[in-house]
Amino acid sequence: MEGVDHLAQERSKAQFDVDQMKVIWAGSRHTLEVSDRIARLVASDPVFRKDNRTLLSRKDLFKNTLQKAAHAWKRITELRLSEEEAYWLRHYVDQPAYTDLHWGMFVPAIKGSGTEEQQKKWLPLAYKMQIIGCYAQTELGHGSNVQGLETTATFDPKTDEFVINSPTLTSSKWWPGGLGKAATHAVVYARLITDGQDHGVHGFIVQLRSLDDHLPLPGIIVGDIGMKFGSGAYNSMDNGVLRLDHVRIPREQMLMRVSQVTREGKYVQSNVPRQLLYGTMVYVRQTIVADASSALSRAVCIATRYSAVRRQFGSQDGGLETQVIDYKTQQSRLFPLLASAYAFRFVGEWLKWLYTDVTEKLQANDFSTLPEAHACTAGLKSLTTSATADGIEECRKLCGGHGYLSNSGLPELFAVYVPACTYEGDNIVLLLQVARFLMKTVAQLPSGKKPVGTTTYMGRAQHLIQCRSSAQKAEDWLNPSVILEVFEARAIRMSIACAQDLSKFSNQEEGFAELSSNLAEAAVAHCQLIVVSKFIDKVQQDIPGKGVKKQLEILCNIYALYTIHKHLGDFLSTGSITAKQASLANDQLRSLYSQLRPNAIALVDAFNFTDHYLGSILGRYDGNVYPSLYAEAWKDPLNESVVPDGYREYVQPLLKNQLRNARL
Amino acid sequence: MEGVDHLAQERSKAQFDVDQMKVIWAGSRHTLEVSDRIARLVASDPVFRKDNRTLLSRKDLFKNTLQKAAHAWKRITELRLSEEEAYWLRHYVDQPAYTDLHWGMFVPAIKGSGTEEQQKKWLPLAYKMQIIGCYAQTELGHGSNVQGLETTATFDPKTDEFVINSPTLTSSKWWPGGLGKAATHAVVYARLITDGQDHGVHGFIVQLRSLDDHLPLPGIIVGDIGMKFGSGAYNSMDNGVLRLDHVRIPREQMLMRVSQVTREGKYVQSNVPRQLLYGTMVYVRQTIVADASSALSRAVCIATRYSAVRRQFGSQDGGLETQVIDYKTQQSRLFPLLASAYAFRFVGEWLKWLYTDVTEKLQANDFSTLPEAHACTAGLKSLTTSATADGIEECRKLCGGHGYLSNSGLPELFAVYVPACTYEGDNIVLLLQVARFLMKTVAQLPSGKKPVGTTTYMGRAQHLIQCRSSAQKAEDWLNPSVILEVFEARAIRMSIACAQDLSKFSNQEEGFAELSSNLAEAAVAHCQLIVVSKFIDKVQQDIPGKGVKKQLEILCNIYALYTIHKHLGDFLSTGSITAKQASLANDQLRSLYSQLRPNAIALVDAFNFTDHYLGSILGRYDGNVYPSLYAEAWKDPLNESVVPDGYREYVQPLLKNQLRNARL
Repeated sequence: MEGVDHLAQERSKAQFDVDQMKVIWAGSRHTLEVSDRIARLVASDPVFRKDNRTLLSRKDLFKNTLQKAAHAWKRITELRLSEEEAYWLRHYVDQPAYTDLHWGMFVPAIKGSGTEEQQKKWLPLAYKMQIIGCYAQTELGHGSNVQGLETTATFDPKTDEFVINSPTLTSSKWWPGGLGKAATHAVVYARLITDGQDHGVHGFIVQLRSLDDHLPLPGIIVGDIGMKFGSGAYNSMDNGVLRLDHVRIPREQMLMRVSQVTREGKYVQSNVPRQLLYGTMVYVRQTIVADASSALSRAVCIATRYSAVRRQFGSQDGGLETQVIDYKTQQSRLFPLLASAYAFRFVGEWLKWLYTDVTEKLQANDFSTLPEAHACTAGLKSLTTSATADGIEECRKLCGGHGYLSNSGLPELFAVYVPACTYEGDNIVLLLQVARFLMKTVAQLPSGKKPVGTTTYMGRAQHLIQCRSSAQKAEDWLNPSVILEVFEARAIRMSIACAQDLSKFSNQEEGFAELSSNLAEAAVAHCQLIVVSKFIDKVQQDIPGKGVKKQLEILCNIYALYTIHKHLGDFLSTGSITAKQASLANDQLRSLYSQLRPNAIALVDAFNFTDHYLGSILGRYDGNVYPSLYAEAWKDPLNESVVPDGYREYVQPLLKNQLRNARL
Repeated sequence: MEGVDHLAQERSKAQFDVDQMKVIWAGSRHTLEVSDRIARLVASDPVFRKDNRTLLSRKDLFKNTLQKAAHAWKRITELRLSEEEAYWLRHYVDQPAYTDLHWGMFVPAIKGSGTEEQQKKWLPLAYKMQIIGCYAQTELGHGSNVQGLETTATFDPKTDEFVINSPTLTSSKWWPGGLGKAATHAVVYARLITDGQDHGVHGFIVQLRSLDDHLPLPGIIVGDIGMKFGSGAYNSMDNGVLRLDHVRIPREQMLMRVSQVTREGKYVQSNVPRQLLYGTMVYVRQTIVADASSALSRAVCIATRYSAVRRQFGSQDGGLETQVIDYKTQQSRLFPLLASAYAFRFVGEWLKWLYTDVTEKLQANDFSTLPEAHACTAGLKSLTTSATADGIEECRKLCGGHGYLSNSGLPELFAVYVPACTYEGDNIVLLLQVARFLMKTVAQLPSGKKPVGTTTYMGRAQHLIQCRSSAQKAEDWLNPSVILEVFEARAIRMSIACAQDLSKFSNQEEGFAELSSNLAEAAVAHCQLIVVSKFIDKVQQDIPGKGVKKQLEILCNIYALYTIHKHLGDFLSTGSITAKQASLANDQLRSLYSQLRPNAIALVDAFNFTDHYLGSILGRYDGNVYPSLYAEAWKDPLNESVVPDGYREYVQPLLKNQLRNARL
């Protein structure tokens, strides 16, 4: 069976140019080429194998992570990989490690918040990995509310130092990745206190461990916080706990780009605008949206391929049973997730553009679009990560019993992904930030101030609160302007309804708290509109390749019509569509599933995953699932002996009715 | 801090008699007393500790399971526990083990499908655990479609034996718990073949391993199928693979209660009606619904207590921050799950009654209510397990970052629970069975045949398809008859709409396949109506204890109104309620959350969980969360040494820029 492609027939059904779709998915021919080359490099390197990861003990798994991180760095330097290539290499190694935080948080924090002098001192050390940095913000008792952090950094003018201290148990730093065992340095967030005055939370570079022997420096208690969700998964990361007992650092190690403490202990603001810091937040969240589409596409690829392999019921005459991918119940759960993976890809691509745009404007001291960009990235982070977490688990269920096996890859993918719903802003807290911005925008409508960017549609409130959808037959639901209008109508009507309900409260904050559930729903409606509209924008571009545009249109329509079906209560209760129109949309959706069906395998092939990266027997490219599952089973440690450890002590005495005398 | 109850203030707010609620939850004073006594017995026994479970290697975890199972059996026999007490003991040990299948599937299969003679032979061996049995049905390539199993049992009249064989790789038995390493016997399901004729799937008792040395008997290849979702969790179970190479068993080991093979090889039906076998299915599914409420209540208990401990934002003056349980966004996600736990408890209680009722009728040869009972249990199994799996994960998210720690108990609870959505009938397949029954019922309405049991409301179709809800103000939504009518209207309208759409297809099976998504949604609507109506029935009983009835009314209304909100599209598109009425229901729902709030902790205390069984630092009875989390962290193996294993090989050379020469 070796070498046979069991999915060849599925692949032959595709009605579009898969290679061209790979380019679209990757973003460019160049990115496709680079990522493909590096993916193969990683896949062919035995040090990077990960198929035994869920069997490793915590200590062995962490050691394995250290090895992979070192080997990755060795390869990066040996092969003189570019920054882009190095990024892809770490990506395809696909194992959470201290390096994620070093490159993803520590370096950006110094770049974003450090003065030029500080950057000149610290960045070269970080770039050469002569130090390992982490990002110590969250505390045991404090997460979302950064302003509530308890750690203090008190300036001592006598010695020109800050004294960093954890005054309480709940002020222990808790969660930072890389902190537990690996990092030599941290950016520690603490309340700055000068001359008895609290200036709020600022960042400080603190050395944690000796560069000679890796022992914690005096006053520093540091360790790992213990096991997390799943086997393998995020347990490769040393999320850490840190207590600081009056640890002294030089004044120069406060990150001083925006505000400074002088030699005399005076707290002064620099002329660098605070808003610049938001640029970093937009950047980080944009990468999270990109990661969402990446994680969801992996799960969808596995579930789609396995749904074509798996057969169940439907054989009338003892012949082959029906492929489960042919069942409408399977399609109606799987295909919207496939469409979502593409949708999130394109909205992520657009966010990358937005980040560039915001950065340019910030550098020109134009802060006008920042609140909108901030709300938009917060909302999209929330929407895409929640949908991806749920979607991965749905894909696991779509694989039936076998999806529950570790070697399906789905349990670990889920366990490693779900923290994205919590870190960098809890998803509900973020939606409420979006809602606050929407309420502000609605309140300003009468003033004639034009909403910008993704809220431009709110400027057409007059029309949108009274328009009626023109959809009269199922095909009308293929029309982008019909779709866009109902999403806009639903979003603005929900926002305005919230604003009206809020206006009945004498205390606005009380009203906001009381109505927060409705407000979060209005924020979701707004964010879904953004995703739909960016997908439509994408599809309306010039797209080369036979049949590629057609497939994207189908995916776009599935995403939109499925969203209408899932949130039908919103669309109907706001009067944005009628029950009859909803029923037509549903008919159209079923028809779209049928159109997608022959292209399903090719559409997941376009993600261009190696079997190594995918890490799933069910999702194997060649579809040769059953023999692989069977062969893999025997590798479990329990099968090392025919009679299990413990038989003599615990099973034999039970069967022989001799437990009474046994010592258990 | 030892001994201080950090939640005492919360408990003092309760407006009802918690002890009386414990009785209601347990089902009776007797059950509360027995389960409480056994729970404490288990909690105080060091062999049953489970706080280190997620750290054990696969082999150690399995050995630990063998030890616990033997110790449990030792205690059961030593203390001469009753059957009821033994059940609770295994329940509170709370670790999946081969004994689950022995008692839960092997014994019932012999009781249900064995002749009296067979029962006399095998049950005493099983009851004394002189043999360990499992239930080998599912195959590598065949799950839901039992009729598609490939394993064969061919009668050989020469030797009066069956030859059991696995003809293909995909016919390997795959998944049966206890099979991998522990079981000595199995009920194997195989296609019965006599004289070249295939009589479909039947059960056979097959000895797998020697009772002397536990080695597999000739022709038997057996082992464990490998790691599953999560750490700890179901990895304590030896789910197995089994290949049978022409294994011979005596003819008497076919389970022959319903059909038999004679000495001459003739296949004959006994006079025992086939339907009797369905009784077992109703029984097993009823226990699954009970387990759902048990699992969901654990998750809800953890999330509720931690939500009262955790504080975030809202401090204006440096004082205490707001308890997260006071946020409406938290309440609107948590309280419906609390209400669901109670709802599933009561519908489970009712299913227990239904099983007794069905059994009595079966014994009187009355099969009239069987299809309805079968559809009802199938649907409730699907509904409650899906909601519970999603609910556990939602509770985990409601605990923020700390819910991701293994010692929150939630990751393992989720991982161990989710198979319930797949085993004993995939949840989607089951919904389609319900839908098929609903379509049949609708089709028979014109004939005047009165629908029975949970479909009685369909007899009032005429009224229900045209009625308009009388709700005019928020308080109207507290009226049970108002609630019941809109749930009935929605359910029947969805069923009838499906039936009408189906009638447009010339081929009914094609129509059913095409519309299966809509049909599954109609089935959900029907099942939710059952849950709501049984909750209302419960609340309308005479309920003693100060304030208890009031709390149950609040929970019942929350369950109903939340369900309306979540499935608003159904209610609006069928015209069962108007947008205005939906908005009033939502207002009422918010008010109910406020009424529930002071009672939240007491309502989860009523579940009467020991800290041992709950297995969660976040859910500790005394709320002393942070010091416990902190203390627990240091027990992780990674903290055994200050400098981690692997530092010299992989970290030091990297920091010193000496990787080039390092062997990685």
